[in-house]
Amino acid sequence: MEKKKVVLAFSGGLDTSYCAIYLAKEMGLEVHAALANTGGFSAEELAKIEKRAYDLGVKSYVALDVTQDYYNTAIKYMIFGNVLKNATYPISVSSERMSQATAIAKYAEQIGADYLCHGSTGAGNDQVRFDMVFNIIAPEIEVIALIREKRLSREEEISYLRSHGVDFDFKKAEYSINQGIWGTSVGGKETLTSSETLPEEAYPSQLKESKSRRITLTFEKGEFVGLDGKRFDDRIAAIQALQAVAAPYAIGRDMHVGDTIIGIKGRVGFEAAAPMIIIKAHHMLEKHTLTKWQLFWKDQIAAFYGNYLHEGQYYDPVMRDMEAMLESSQRTVSGDVYVDLHPYRFVVVGIKSEHDLMSNAFGAYGETMSDWTSDDVKGFGKIFGNQNKIWYKVNKGMK
Amino acid sequence: MEKKKVVLAFSGGLDTSYCAIYLAKEMGLEVHAALANTGGFSAEELAKIEKRAYDLGVKSYVALDVTQDYYNTAIKYMIFGNVLKNATYPISVSSERMSQATAIAKYAEQIGADYLCHGSTGAGNDQVRFDMVFNIIAPEIEVIALIREKRLSREEEISYLRSHGVDFDFKKAEYSINQGIWGTSVGGKETLTSSETLPEEAYPSQLKESKSRRITLTFEKGEFVGLDGKRFDDRIAAIQALQAVAAPYAIGRDMHVGDTIIGIKGRVGFEAAAPMIIIKAHHMLEKHTLTKWQLFWKDQIAAFYGNYLHEGQYYDPVMRDMEAMLESSQRTVSGDVYVDLHPYRFVVVGIKSEHDLMSNAFGAYGETMSDWTSDDVKGFGKIFGNQNKIWYKVNKGMK
Amino acid sequence: MEKKKVVLAFSGGLDTSYCAIYLAKEMGLEVHAALANTGGFSAEELAKIEKRAYDLGVKSYVALDVTQDYYNTAIKYMIFGNVLKNATYPISVSSERMSQATAIAKYAEQIGADYLCHGSTGAGNDQVRFDMVFNIIAPEIEVIALIREKRLSREEEISYLRSHGVDFDFKKAEYSINQGIWGTSVGGKETLTSSETLPEEAYPSQLKESKSRRITLTFEKGEFVGLDGKRFDDRIAAIQALQAVAAPYAIGRDMHVGDTIIGIKGRVGFEAAAPMIIIKAHHMLEKHTLTKWQLFWKDQIAAFYGNYLHEGQYYDPVMRDMEAMLESSQRTVSGDVYVDLHPYRFVVVGIKSEHDLMSNAFGAYGETMSDWTSDDVKGFGKIFGNQNKIWYKVNKGMK
Amino acid sequence: MEKKKVVLAFSGGLDTSYCAIYLAKEMGLEVHAALANTGGFSAEELAKIEKRAYDLGVKSYVALDVTQDYYNTAIKYMIFGNVLKNATYPISVSSERMSQATAIAKYAEQIGADYLCHGSTGAGNDQVRFDMVFNIIAPEIEVIALIREKRLSREEEISYLRSHGVDFDFKKAEYSINQGIWGTSVGGKETLTSSETLPEEAYPSQLKESKSRRITLTFEKGEFVGLDGKRFDDRIAAIQALQAVAAPYAIGRDMHVGDTIIGIKGRVGFEAAAPMIIIKAHHMLEKHTLTKWQLFWKDQIAAFYGNYLHEGQYYDPVMRDMEAMLESSQRTVSGDVYVDLHPYRFVVVGIKSEHDLMSNAFGAYGETMSDWTSDDVKGFGKIFGNQNKIWYKVNKGMK
Repeated sequence: MEKKKVVLAFSGGLDTSYCAIYLAKEMGLEVHAALANTGGFSAEELAKIEKRAYDLGVKSYVALDVTQDYYNTAIKYMIFGNVLKNATYPISVSSERMSQATAIAKYAEQIGADYLCHGSTGAGNDQVRFDMVFNIIAPEIEVIALIREKRLSREEEISYLRSHGVDFDFKKAEYSINQGIWGTSVGGKETLTSSETLPEEAYPSQLKESKSRRITLTFEKGEFVGLDGKRFDDRIAAIQALQAVAAPYAIGRDMHVGDTIIGIKGRVGFEAAAPMIIIKAHHMLEKHTLTKWQLFWKDQIAAFYGNYLHEGQYYDPVMRDMEAMLESSQRTVSGDVYVDLHPYRFVVVGIKSEHDLMSNAFGAYGETMSDWTSDDVKGFGKIFGNQNKIWYKVNKGMK
Repeated sequence: MEKKKVVLAFSGGLDTSYCAIYLAKEMGLEVHAALANTGGFSAEELAKIEKRAYDLGVKSYVALDVTQDYYNTAIKYMIFGNVLKNATYPISVSSERMSQATAIAKYAEQIGADYLCHGSTGAGNDQVRFDMVFNIIAPEIEVIALIREKRLSREEEISYLRSHGVDFDFKKAEYSINQGIWGTSVGGKETLTSSETLPEEAYPSQLKESKSRRITLTFEKGEFVGLDGKRFDDRIAAIQALQAVAAPYAIGRDMHVGDTIIGIKGRVGFEAAAPMIIIKAHHMLEKHTLTKWQLFWKDQIAAFYGNYLHEGQYYDPVMRDMEAMLESSQRTVSGDVYVDLHPYRFVVVGIKSEHDLMSNAFGAYGETMSDWTSDDVKGFGKIFGNQNKIWYKVNKGMK
Repeated sequence: MEKKKVVLAFSGGLDTSYCAIYLAKEMGLEVHAALANTGGFSAEELAKIEKRAYDLGVKSYVALDVTQDYYNTAIKYMIFGNVLKNATYPISVSSERMSQATAIAKYAEQIGADYLCHGSTGAGNDQVRFDMVFNIIAPEIEVIALIREKRLSREEEISYLRSHGVDFDFKKAEYSINQGIWGTSVGGKETLTSSETLPEEAYPSQLKESKSRRITLTFEKGEFVGLDGKRFDDRIAAIQALQAVAAPYAIGRDMHVGDTIIGIKGRVGFEAAAPMIIIKAHHMLEKHTLTKWQLFWKDQIAAFYGNYLHEGQYYDPVMRDMEAMLESSQRTVSGDVYVDLHPYRFVVVGIKSEHDLMSNAFGAYGETMSDWTSDDVKGFGKIFGNQNKIWYKVNKGMK
Repeated sequence: MEKKKVVLAFSGGLDTSYCAIYLAKEMGLEVHAALANTGGFSAEELAKIEKRAYDLGVKSYVALDVTQDYYNTAIKYMIFGNVLKNATYPISVSSERMSQATAIAKYAEQIGADYLCHGSTGAGNDQVRFDMVFNIIAPEIEVIALIREKRLSREEEISYLRSHGVDFDFKKAEYSINQGIWGTSVGGKETLTSSETLPEEAYPSQLKESKSRRITLTFEKGEFVGLDGKRFDDRIAAIQALQAVAAPYAIGRDMHVGDTIIGIKGRVGFEAAAPMIIIKAHHMLEKHTLTKWQLFWKDQIAAFYGNYLHEGQYYDPVMRDMEAMLESSQRTVSGDVYVDLHPYRFVVVGIKSEHDLMSNAFGAYGETMSDWTSDDVKGFGKIFGNQNKIWYKVNKGMK
């Protein structure tokens, strides 16, 4: 009898290595490992993961490059919306799970898999994200959340692997690092408290540059397309170029505490030099090129968009509606933004744009017949305050 | 015949000195000068302004201290709402105009004035703020906006004053500074451009401290009440104490570009060490103590509240409604926040609060019968993604 | 050994009768039945339910009157917010579950119960509402959702009851009716379709009055306190008095289709004469007495408030924050509203209020010096459109 | 010397007739009359207006048909957004001013006019709408608001016209009627009060049909395209066909009281049979085909969109952003809606759509492996209420 197929979302770590063995040995499945790369892995790392997969005896292994998909479906809109969860965190990790889960579920459909397996534990957000996306993209494929169901300790997993001849180096790092194109999260003993912060050495990018420097970011319709005059058709390459310049300044570090999907508060450190600079520069350009109400409403929409994306609800069609609004708002968000880099911080200096609504010309009155006079402003003030004046007249003595 | 009375909103500067003379000499009015102090003046400055008033021949002069009123009616709620216009500017200047205009209008009512005069030009926001508040608080008193109506150059004003024997030192500073308890704004030739930034020396607080330091801010129901263990019943004193510690680090500087009431974009530099630290520390405390939807909705409300306060619409009763919501949200926002000060920047380290919703205990499952299991989360994921799963089933192939 | 105690949320229907027997006979528990009445039961019905409880052999029975609590914690704010889910449904049923579940959980705490049992099935919203409230109010008491767990058919339940000597009349009505003070919901075979509507005879109030009539509703700070000049200190009595007058007109019927907590769409018919008239009359009074932005923002807040209340999330503290805002907005919502009743419909005729902001006096210009002139409006128009004029000047040819 | 050209927004009424003479005789301008028709005029009325224009001696007259433009730029989005100001008024009149003013301003540009003249008084909203649109579309053309500037009485205008040989029948109707494709507004002595309502005879459509009737509206991506099986490529024709069927039932009448642009409250009666039926039917279809959050957010956006359109701010680019979001939301809003017409009222019966998210199939559990079980819902309830449970545990005794 033919074996049933399972596609395993594989990372090469302890949990998914355990799954690879267990699915084959205990459940009798044909294991197809799939890694979805959102830009967090080097070529060496990818080679190492592939080797591990085959060492674990999987039937097949594939590395799915979802970096462009991740840019097109999430990063682009997070820039448009200046998405910073609780005004702090560029939701570096959570947003990339959507592209990863989608690519793996589609791959499973493509090879006719009977099962989909992810290695998320029962404590975090990722289990919900993987479950939901798998159910939407491949509703007819059963999901196995092996680690969540088994609830084993690290020691038990390592022991099981050893009993099957697998003896990788699974030593636990003091700080768990989750690296992607849109930022790196850092967890450790301090992030389990409310009061302590990560030590300097926990961050992946150490300070290597002390000389301040001015850089120029170019945006076209809200997209970051150029650095210091060099244009990138590949948006990912633009982000990587900026990251290379900014990371040595140890910029973009902070602690985020936020609401997880399952209702508890979670805390994490992060480092996101390029994302933080892009968002703040982009926002400054918008302040010059968008109207008051454009700025107001896109903020309100983006707040929900970011939260809901974080909660794994990318596939709610309301997200498409919000993306349409955000995209429309970017029609005039083109121009250059000047940023000064300093150790541990950056300053957005100013902008240059042909869509800049700020101009001394507009502020001076009386220049042409359609400009305004002091009487116009006096009239404006009367009418603008009219309803409140009436309110106080009607409701004398009330506050 | 008795002269008619005018209350002049007096600052001691060129414009209002011109008004003091003109109102008396040309319009035959009895001039009562009133200064509304929101914490931006030292005792020496106040004495100097009073002397100027009497040198200009005013019938009376009064300095109205509106600092506590400003705290109670605006600063408190700006902290509750983490109000930063366009995620940047603690609306330092605009918000204090409300308390100032209100105090002056009430004073005019009290002494039975026939006119109210302010010295705002026709180019900025303040004219609209003063006009609207005067019309609401003292609707029966006519407003004279002399500078707006006359549209004189500096030279013409100085020449007029000299012709009446007034020869104060009105030399124009290279950078115009507007100082208050909630921050100092700085204007200069760079702020008239979109691309340049203020030079180091334009800022009032120069860097004087290079040694990093950790401080502790204490909040009670959202109000900043203590610094490094010292409690302040006077909230203004607490802000001043923090300002004294933080200003030497040259913290809280930035450029703001935003929408003026009259529809043009305006740009201004500012320095607001204490306000920026208080808001960011307060926000961090909220992230630990408020629920997800509390955080979401108070942000949405505060965005409008800040914008509308900036536009001088403090007296719209919707502001009272929003203040009620913001105040309610602060019931649990009590505790300590740890902040590290460094030259030009600060880092919010962490918090300690008996209302902290983050705890490892809540994250572990299976501990008590009311906690959750991995099956519970699996079920949650199914139901949480249910509507979208149905949507994709019904709308196959759509995106 | 002493038996463990269970408090059973009892309605006298088939499901909770089954629970009463099962909990005692199969689980060996001491059953304490509790009914939480939100105004949907007559004295006769209450007597019948009590008799049933004791016939089923419960150790104790109590009828908890939560009508006033329901008014104070939900109805009042639903009026303040003009809460109509999807502009249609006064969330008649869902909102009362909060008061019921709370009262029952508190009663269980009071008598030291070990278990709480509700009879909700696994298909609807009520199970989630009861589960969540029980977990919040009495977190140490274990919840038994017997009907959900057993998944029995009606026939199986009836057969089980008969085998224990219980032979009540459990014939299933063609239309299931859920009656409360804030409206009656009606389910039937038509509500299981998307295209059909309930027949005339499915509604509890048949048309009995064909003569049109004008009535006057009096509101004080947003609360409905008087009908046709008669004042009610008991707000529930006021609602009942209006219901008695309006129900014979067969007013306030409609079909609601909405999102359930569990993500599916549900459809239900309802009849809510008094609630619909109160909300529409209250809203009209607000249009006259609130400012533009008060109307706007309370709508935005109330939309979320109603949805979240419907989803059983009454206990999120954000609901208290929103209630504070809604309550603040009602300061001036006092006065009379005139309503014409006709068969199947009503018309809100007009209002009379000392807080009415509409007055011809305010619309005429030039009357006093603080009123406005045609020049003022001309100036207003220029400034009000200023930013857009600049936008089109800068972005020539764009749309 | 060549005369300067003025384009006069002409309606044939007293005010614009006065303008036609005054602009020519007193100001020496070459008058080009332009009428912008949004569907409120019959062929006979148009012929009569043209004759009047030439009788008044204008150099040229043109009737600009902007009905399709009005549909494409406003009506379509008002349907998408279910726009009812204050849950009542389909902003019948205000929204059409945008298309009218735009067409007239473009016409003025096209013929190289030096001036633009509108006949709005200084008391209402239309002056602001015309001023703003003229300033945006034709910023270099000076606006003459003759009636606002002159402030003449009816008698003075009539007398002036007679003195120039013009003696049209300008008798004032008891009720002023403003008719358009999206509804008819009615003003009269009752609308100047807060407490009275218009008499039956003030409404343009009298009750002529007493026999109830079921009709079917067909929508495609949110647009109303068919009635009772007949498809209309011309959307205006579809609206007119529905209006012809529904108006004899005297449906869609109500009183609106709302905030004018200039801050005062205004009251108006209206009759809008087709618009009200279309909006309510469209909304019902959306309740079946959109997700919970789509419904929520489009409501929030549409509330602002409608208000701002009413205030004449159509040209703010934020409106384009919101239109993009509203349009995106309509992807699945296709299907039939059944409506029953009765005298003075209508009932939305139900819908049929291949995008209907409501189905008994989705409500039953256990059918396929990806559907949910009672345990799933139990788990969902635990997690969904998790944060509040933690809140009450942490904040014991608080409410």
